[in-house]
Amino acid sequence: MNKVFTSIEKLFERIDVRNGMRISFHHHLRNGDLVVKHVVGAMSRLGIKNIKLSATSLMPCHDFLIDFIRDGTIVSLETSGLRGSLGEFVSRGEGYLEYPVIFRSHGGRARAISDGEAPVDIAFIAASSADIYGNATGMSGLNSFGSIGYGIWEAQNAKKVVIVTDNLVQGVLENISICQSQVDAILVVPSIGDSSKLKFGALVSKSDPITKVIARNVIAFLAKSGVDLDNASIQLGSGGISLETTKYLIDYLKESGKRIKFAIGGVTPELVRALEYGYIQSLLDVQSFDASVSKSLLRNSRHHEIDVNTYANPQNDSCAVNFLDIAILSALEIDVNWNVNVLTGSNGKFMGAIGGHQDVAEGSKLTIIVSPSIRERIPVVVKEVTTRVTDGKYVDVWINERGIVLKEEHNVYKKNLIDAGIPVLDMEEIYKEVEKLVGHAQRPRYKEKVVALVQDRTGCTKVKINEREVIK
Amino acid sequence: MNKVFTSIEKLFERIDVRNGMRISFHHHLRNGDLVVKHVVGAMSRLGIKNIKLSATSLMPCHDFLIDFIRDGTIVSLETSGLRGSLGEFVSRGEGYLEYPVIFRSHGGRARAISDGEAPVDIAFIAASSADIYGNATGMSGLNSFGSIGYGIWEAQNAKKVVIVTDNLVQGVLENISICQSQVDAILVVPSIGDSSKLKFGALVSKSDPITKVIARNVIAFLAKSGVDLDNASIQLGSGGISLETTKYLIDYLKESGKRIKFAIGGVTPELVRALEYGYIQSLLDVQSFDASVSKSLLRNSRHHEIDVNTYANPQNDSCAVNFLDIAILSALEIDVNWNVNVLTGSNGKFMGAIGGHQDVAEGSKLTIIVSPSIRERIPVVVKEVTTRVTDGKYVDVWINERGIVLKEEHNVYKKNLIDAGIPVLDMEEIYKEVEKLVGHAQRPRYKEKVVALVQDRTGCTKVKINEREVIK
Repeated sequence: MNKVFTSIEKLFERIDVRNGMRISFHHHLRNGDLVVKHVVGAMSRLGIKNIKLSATSLMPCHDFLIDFIRDGTIVSLETSGLRGSLGEFVSRGEGYLEYPVIFRSHGGRARAISDGEAPVDIAFIAASSADIYGNATGMSGLNSFGSIGYGIWEAQNAKKVVIVTDNLVQGVLENISICQSQVDAILVVPSIGDSSKLKFGALVSKSDPITKVIARNVIAFLAKSGVDLDNASIQLGSGGISLETTKYLIDYLKESGKRIKFAIGGVTPELVRALEYGYIQSLLDVQSFDASVSKSLLRNSRHHEIDVNTYANPQNDSCAVNFLDIAILSALEIDVNWNVNVLTGSNGKFMGAIGGHQDVAEGSKLTIIVSPSIRERIPVVVKEVTTRVTDGKYVDVWINERGIVLKEEHNVYKKNLIDAGIPVLDMEEIYKEVEKLVGHAQRPRYKEKVVALVQDRTGCTKVKINEREVIK
Repeated sequence: MNKVFTSIEKLFERIDVRNGMRISFHHHLRNGDLVVKHVVGAMSRLGIKNIKLSATSLMPCHDFLIDFIRDGTIVSLETSGLRGSLGEFVSRGEGYLEYPVIFRSHGGRARAISDGEAPVDIAFIAASSADIYGNATGMSGLNSFGSIGYGIWEAQNAKKVVIVTDNLVQGVLENISICQSQVDAILVVPSIGDSSKLKFGALVSKSDPITKVIARNVIAFLAKSGVDLDNASIQLGSGGISLETTKYLIDYLKESGKRIKFAIGGVTPELVRALEYGYIQSLLDVQSFDASVSKSLLRNSRHHEIDVNTYANPQNDSCAVNFLDIAILSALEIDVNWNVNVLTGSNGKFMGAIGGHQDVAEGSKLTIIVSPSIRERIPVVVKEVTTRVTDGKYVDVWINERGIVLKEEHNVYKKNLIDAGIPVLDMEEIYKEVEKLVGHAQRPRYKEKVVALVQDRTGCTKVKINEREVIK
């Protein structure tokens, strides 16, 4: 009955780790994760080969994977995001990765691991606390990281489930997120990582003047357009502008007396405070954007940990994104046909993640993109996005530093906005103005080899990304 | 996206109720349940036929099912228990039920609904609170009944899931037991029942002198035999003697300073108090034996709601019963080969339930049966039990009002007990003494037709029960 291992070699023997398996990891620890290194490092050491690595996302802390791709331990990557040296390595098609990287949204991945497209042989699930029976959570322990929403679904779907923890509890764990019934083994390690490094990249709030103007424009839109904000459900995305907008929105809720029915998404300390003050009635938390959020999950019964199936699985009609009224999402590029890119820069470099972008945009009744029109002298609005991640048909409004851009079908809001003195702009016109100001972005030059595929939620390949020529 | 129905006819249309389906119910409301009547009554009214009814247990409040068996709505029953007029009806083989009743333990049923033996087409799950998205619980609302542990597993396994509630919440429910992702529809009814009727039959504590003597003998055994009680995990069953023993055990824990690691089972207010005082470190609650227990589930993070798969599914190596050190279980009969009957009286009448008996006895390291040796001038100890529910090989100790009966392999405890002046008795000898005192019990006379099958946990039929001849 003993499921607890301190030796990874003995664990691998017991759960029968073999060449060619698909193994999975979650990224709740974001750039503070040590679990991928621990597991893949041991596989390399033990000569295990041809592993398919499926992660909810990959961060710069996973750049070391380059070595394990080079030595043949890893032959394929599936993820929602890619950045840093690993992104550059993939992008240059160095010939080591046998298969193109597959990019999926969080919802698309939830579907793929349960519907047979990409079944997981072994899920290695980082947990900040676990007990000897296998019950686990991310809410307690030194490295608590809040919701373990991706891990819950992996535990329910993977053939074998290993909890990796640095805090083993001898009795029954309090506040169980993953149940012992789903767990085959517990691996105790000195450290699962550093949850203080959770705040990274898209989670660092911005407060430059342009960001503030955009955030103000969002509030102006919500307040004056005629959109029904009171009692609405809302998703606030990651990305500096979304995060700043959250702060403005909370101030607006306070002043206006309007209330949010539920908010989903990466949960920030700002959202937790809004829940406590009653501006938001419930929080659905698939991923926490700050270690401190754990405390709220533990004590507030209106702060719910949800698994990624309940968040965004397109095969689950009841998933939360389908009940969204309003979503505020970021963009690296948006094109004149409203398609959005959140994965690559205009130069083709991997520098972001799909995250829940596709899921939320499709599910939400009204999808608002927030971004500047120009970023570091590179146009954000383009003729055609470098990488079409989210289809234009799921996007409704683009709010930038210049004002509000509405799709034609939303012209009902136009009069209200103009009456309130808020600039309503035309997509084509902004595109032309921006082009005049900064010219075209330098486009990447691609070679023949396909290095990555971007799927839509249902698993269709929407974009093939080729090997990128390095521009000196 | 609307999943809420107030008309059962419209609900049936939407979820496509058809003749011949297997539908399921839980018995958390015990003798206060109204949901079975509501659903099956509507089926009869609408002319739906040949339904297989699978319930975690059936109580006297379900006697009305006789009418719906007679009119052809119901053709088969699967349950862990049967009593009252419905039991008598089945027992007499009145020719209406097409198939024998199948009796399974809670763990056996968990297995059967997930492994393909008895898949559920539609689970109707009574919930004392639910929200418009489908999230549900038994912990809140006017008719709160505590853990909804059987329902959780049905929600995960049934093809269609209907939550039946009398308390619909408009926002996101607090304290969610069953997740919206698993729920197809919510049926709002005026009343799911009366949770004050939870305490019924086996849950009514006894305090007659014999019961007290047996409870004292159990404590004497635990205190003096050398059994390692401190830091042990324990299950305390239902039945008047088990319930009385719980009280004595708690007093003993208080005095001795010994502590229980975790306790499973029907959770009583006594167990909740023991948790609060720290005598028991954690409670695993698959079913609450009093409506008041809800409050503890809501506020105490060491009081865990567990589903029946985690409780006792024999296909789940990690189920809680496998981690039990000591179990205290009741008996209607025990025979000289240690086999136990908890389902029928010596007269063959259905008057009990398997419940978790088979599961707990097999899982626990030490299984103690508590019962008097004679009950109302009918012998409890017999040559061969009328209905062999739990195999003698899983039973270790029998404690009655006369003293302690040990299986030979437990003779290690014998000396300690004798030294402490506690009577240690021999099974055969008690059997003979009891026989001398009250004679044989009148055995039932059976006819040819098989009216019920008793399965073991794995799904093998262990006992066939024939139509009983009515003795006038």
